[in-house]
Amino acid sequence: MGLLEGISSPQDVRRLSTAQVGELADEIRAFLVDQVSRTGGHLGPNLGVVELSIALHRVFDSPRDTLVFDTGHQAYVHKLLTGRRDFSALRRRGGMSGYPSRAESEHDVVENSHASTALSWADGIAKARQLRGENDRHTVAVIGDGALTGGMAWEALNNIAAGVDRRLVVVVNDNGRSYAPTIGGLAQHLDTLRTTQGYESVLSWGKSTLRRSGPPGRLAYEALHGLKKGIKDVVAPQGMFEDLGLKYVGPVDGHDEQAVEHALRRARAFGGPVLVHVITEKGRGYTPAEQDVADRFHAVGKIHPETGLPLAPSRFGWTSVFADEIVRVGRRRPDVVAITAAMLQPVGLAPFAAEFPDRVFDVGIAEQHAATSAAGMAYAGLHPVVAVYATFLNRAFDQVLMDVALHRAGVTFVLDRAGITGDDGASHNGMWDLAMLSIVPGLRLAAPRDEPTLRAALRQAVDVDDAPTVVRYPKGTMGDPVPALEDADGVDVLARHAGEGTRVLVVGIGSMVGTALAVGELLAGHGAAVTVVDPRWVLPVPASLVKLAGEHEHVVTIEDGLVDGGIGSLVAQRTREANVHTPVQSFGIPAAFLQHAARDEIVDELRLGPHDVAGDVLAALHARG
Amino acid sequence: MGLLEGISSPQDVRRLSTAQVGELADEIRAFLVDQVSRTGGHLGPNLGVVELSIALHRVFDSPRDTLVFDTGHQAYVHKLLTGRRDFSALRRRGGMSGYPSRAESEHDVVENSHASTALSWADGIAKARQLRGENDRHTVAVIGDGALTGGMAWEALNNIAAGVDRRLVVVVNDNGRSYAPTIGGLAQHLDTLRTTQGYESVLSWGKSTLRRSGPPGRLAYEALHGLKKGIKDVVAPQGMFEDLGLKYVGPVDGHDEQAVEHALRRARAFGGPVLVHVITEKGRGYTPAEQDVADRFHAVGKIHPETGLPLAPSRFGWTSVFADEIVRVGRRRPDVVAITAAMLQPVGLAPFAAEFPDRVFDVGIAEQHAATSAAGMAYAGLHPVVAVYATFLNRAFDQVLMDVALHRAGVTFVLDRAGITGDDGASHNGMWDLAMLSIVPGLRLAAPRDEPTLRAALRQAVDVDDAPTVVRYPKGTMGDPVPALEDADGVDVLARHAGEGTRVLVVGIGSMVGTALAVGELLAGHGAAVTVVDPRWVLPVPASLVKLAGEHEHVVTIEDGLVDGGIGSLVAQRTREANVHTPVQSFGIPAAFLQHAARDEIVDELRLGPHDVAGDVLAALHARG
Repeated sequence: MGLLEGISSPQDVRRLSTAQVGELADEIRAFLVDQVSRTGGHLGPNLGVVELSIALHRVFDSPRDTLVFDTGHQAYVHKLLTGRRDFSALRRRGGMSGYPSRAESEHDVVENSHASTALSWADGIAKARQLRGENDRHTVAVIGDGALTGGMAWEALNNIAAGVDRRLVVVVNDNGRSYAPTIGGLAQHLDTLRTTQGYESVLSWGKSTLRRSGPPGRLAYEALHGLKKGIKDVVAPQGMFEDLGLKYVGPVDGHDEQAVEHALRRARAFGGPVLVHVITEKGRGYTPAEQDVADRFHAVGKIHPETGLPLAPSRFGWTSVFADEIVRVGRRRPDVVAITAAMLQPVGLAPFAAEFPDRVFDVGIAEQHAATSAAGMAYAGLHPVVAVYATFLNRAFDQVLMDVALHRAGVTFVLDRAGITGDDGASHNGMWDLAMLSIVPGLRLAAPRDEPTLRAALRQAVDVDDAPTVVRYPKGTMGDPVPALEDADGVDVLARHAGEGTRVLVVGIGSMVGTALAVGELLAGHGAAVTVVDPRWVLPVPASLVKLAGEHEHVVTIEDGLVDGGIGSLVAQRTREANVHTPVQSFGIPAAFLQHAARDEIVDELRLGPHDVAGDVLAALHARG
Repeated sequence: MGLLEGISSPQDVRRLSTAQVGELADEIRAFLVDQVSRTGGHLGPNLGVVELSIALHRVFDSPRDTLVFDTGHQAYVHKLLTGRRDFSALRRRGGMSGYPSRAESEHDVVENSHASTALSWADGIAKARQLRGENDRHTVAVIGDGALTGGMAWEALNNIAAGVDRRLVVVVNDNGRSYAPTIGGLAQHLDTLRTTQGYESVLSWGKSTLRRSGPPGRLAYEALHGLKKGIKDVVAPQGMFEDLGLKYVGPVDGHDEQAVEHALRRARAFGGPVLVHVITEKGRGYTPAEQDVADRFHAVGKIHPETGLPLAPSRFGWTSVFADEIVRVGRRRPDVVAITAAMLQPVGLAPFAAEFPDRVFDVGIAEQHAATSAAGMAYAGLHPVVAVYATFLNRAFDQVLMDVALHRAGVTFVLDRAGITGDDGASHNGMWDLAMLSIVPGLRLAAPRDEPTLRAALRQAVDVDDAPTVVRYPKGTMGDPVPALEDADGVDVLARHAGEGTRVLVVGIGSMVGTALAVGELLAGHGAAVTVVDPRWVLPVPASLVKLAGEHEHVVTIEDGLVDGGIGSLVAQRTREANVHTPVQSFGIPAAFLQHAARDEIVDELRLGPHDVAGDVLAALHARG
């Protein structure tokens, strides 16, 4: 690993000879396969951008020029080239983040891992540079073809195109499949551009001509560009990007570092907004990843570096139960259809798609469209099930509210990876859903605790045809079923502990039911008379829960979501409104962004483990006397 | 008004002769000018779509075919043609809605007035029709050129283009300015398409040829289309819509009803997704509206039908104070820039734009981009002020959270028309902002009560450079300033009433401070010892407010926002966490969508007037004993 060890900043990358660049790329690939197979992480996307990242750092001068990576999970190579080589604790507490991180480096800018934001960031940065008289500082946004299907990217392209003299370069990292086979008009258009080989070969001639004539300035660029336009009318359809007013350069072979470098230099010299279309292969150079059509290598757990087989196969308990139950529902109900936003596999819709190919719609990275087109489907007589990660539904709050709920559309949202997810960092935690959805009028939300309640919740949800329904569950494996002792008007009573002390009602929500049971035992050990319940359907707050609150002297709610505005807060509100004055003590996630770490570590840190919760409850009881 | 009176359903429209259609259009224009000048409403947009609406109802068979209007404020003509002629109580309680309304008619589908949703609705409806074997039912979405700049429209176009055999027609109602001069790449492209007159005249020849050859089927269409393509390569750039895979028909003169009808018939016959580009003039046929370049006639108060001058000029007190103060801030702080989403005039940024033309960015109907590009600007050293209507910030929740707040960006959001707005109906009320923003970590929010506190809040907000700040205020006029008696650690004490009864703390938030003062007096009249306070900065909840709560026996909070998850709910949460057990009674808007009516009527209906609030407080005190 001779060359890589010598790289401690982008200057070192720029000093390499052309031959050395090839060596460096090989070293980086070997390093990534070796390291990421040990720690887990986004292997495929990073193997695809080795040459692109090297070229970016050779052509642009970060941090004076600004590099913005969309979604950020493809920044491992960028990290290596900016002097960060310790991947040993990747995505673990105290270790390197799996995403750009301002705390790690001045070369990192955007930490948000939600897709399609990079162009807006870049537009803002370029506008500021211009206004501050720093227009010689370039801004470069690297965005995948999949992320271009997100609405934000369109809003940004429109604005970028209008900024004719800002130094902004949009690099489209086109691997032709992004998360999954990309659908829609844009994908077809990119494909057309991609496959115009005749065009590219003529372009090579232009490139070499230009190369001989020294560094390209605007005039040289325009001359080449004129040539390009002429050719394009013959061999390629004129691109929509140029229709929008963006100069288009490409397509460029993203694994030919010299070609990428050359295209970027031309874009840099142009002096206005330019789109550079780079074709890459996800997983390039690592055979198991290249051959994996189902995209299992997008993000990997720990794998064997040679076979690419998982060392410890992940069990996605919640997801696989949903995957199974939605197929059963689909068999029974021909009106049930599934929608997802570029996450067919991760949310468990593959079996449904296999059995009902006409009844599944992957809309691209487009949560807004997922929600509103679902409202349209419901209007026309279907019952759509929109399955996404919880954190990504934030993108569609307005649509859930104004299109689905306002129109009383029977749409079911299934939120996977709700609550604390941990190692992907702040923006992947699904901790906002309960609070956000609790302010949507008419919406009904279930937080199942185990396999039977998940199956039941889904069946009940698709039976509601005049309001949005939501089923949310966490990432990870599922515990054993927790049967109810009895049903108290729709609220499951899970445990009763007799005792002489304070009568405490412990309300466990979804994945926190296990914690609630443990807390109940601990409190009972201190003499309290404890009832542990699970309302399952937590929105709207069941009247029976308020009644139970009135029958106890202290209420404890525990949820895997924000404590402010969460379910506990709403339980308190409803009890106050009912003139029930039993104190409600609510436990959940504080209003703060969580650093990446394992889920259990975060739970401990937030004092949401059974011992901490029970301790805080006892303290509150003690303080009240 | 002979013809119009005979129209009670679209069948009646289809029976008219070509000559009668012209008469009907004239009658409709006279009717709209006469009626809307009495009631107020969206005059300009509706005058622009008279012929288009007639043509739609002659070519398509609503409600068997589905017509979806984006933003909905241009549906007045549609209402007339579907038998709704009573405009006397337009937008008033119990009267006709200013937007489509399912309760009014089976011809109305989408009630959401937020822009850019129609294409997603249409895609969902068309998918459902196809799946249910009803693919002969057409779905037509009418969307403005401005709304096409919204990200949702892009997400939908991508999906629509992929549905090659669905009967979906996108009508772009292009008036070339939408809310305000539209910027960006798309606008330039539409402009290019619009101005290819040579192309259009050749197309006329094609049209008449086709007309002679009987109703156009797919073959005839393709023949014409082939001709069109050939011509287009010469006189017009190939359009981006066709690059995406959408058939493009146009541009068509939107005031030539026969031409529009013809284009729509061709689109209808095609059998797949088609985009019809119709050029209209906002305010067409009403001289004062046509000549108004500043778009004062987009929505009007009551006006004189001949001069077009307002009968009772609206006073936008809050907006004009902001308009003035942001200019002062701009003079002092060269780093302060303004961003708006196609609402430069309505939010009061025109004076700022006049004085600092380089420092204002209208991003189109693109709230997501507004928020994230602001984060980019903040990163690069500016302090952006994003001014939008409160209800539209819902579109950017994820961006406020993940781009602005997560990155601790110093961005100020100014939310106009916060709280109950009334006559524009459910989706215009700005009632979600407080609850939604209260779950954004680190965010600081001010709800000023009067002119001095608005000016101060804005000045304080732009001084915060490491967190998002928000200043929110209502629609309408402003009352007289309410001076503070004293400052209690940042909380303004506005009134103190001595009394022997219960010690009550009344917390008024923003526009509800007047109500809080009145409630305070009423409670004092019943013997309570009352303190009335205004925290001004309500997020985060000031510690001093919790302290004050501990010094009273009952806390009342009154806000012009959702009671669930609102400020009162958060005050209750913070007091519970501080082991302060003073009961908190919170008043605000219930979790329900509000029917259109005057603001005062809604306030009464929700029992948020001083007498209702005071009565409920007394009842609660009495119940507690």
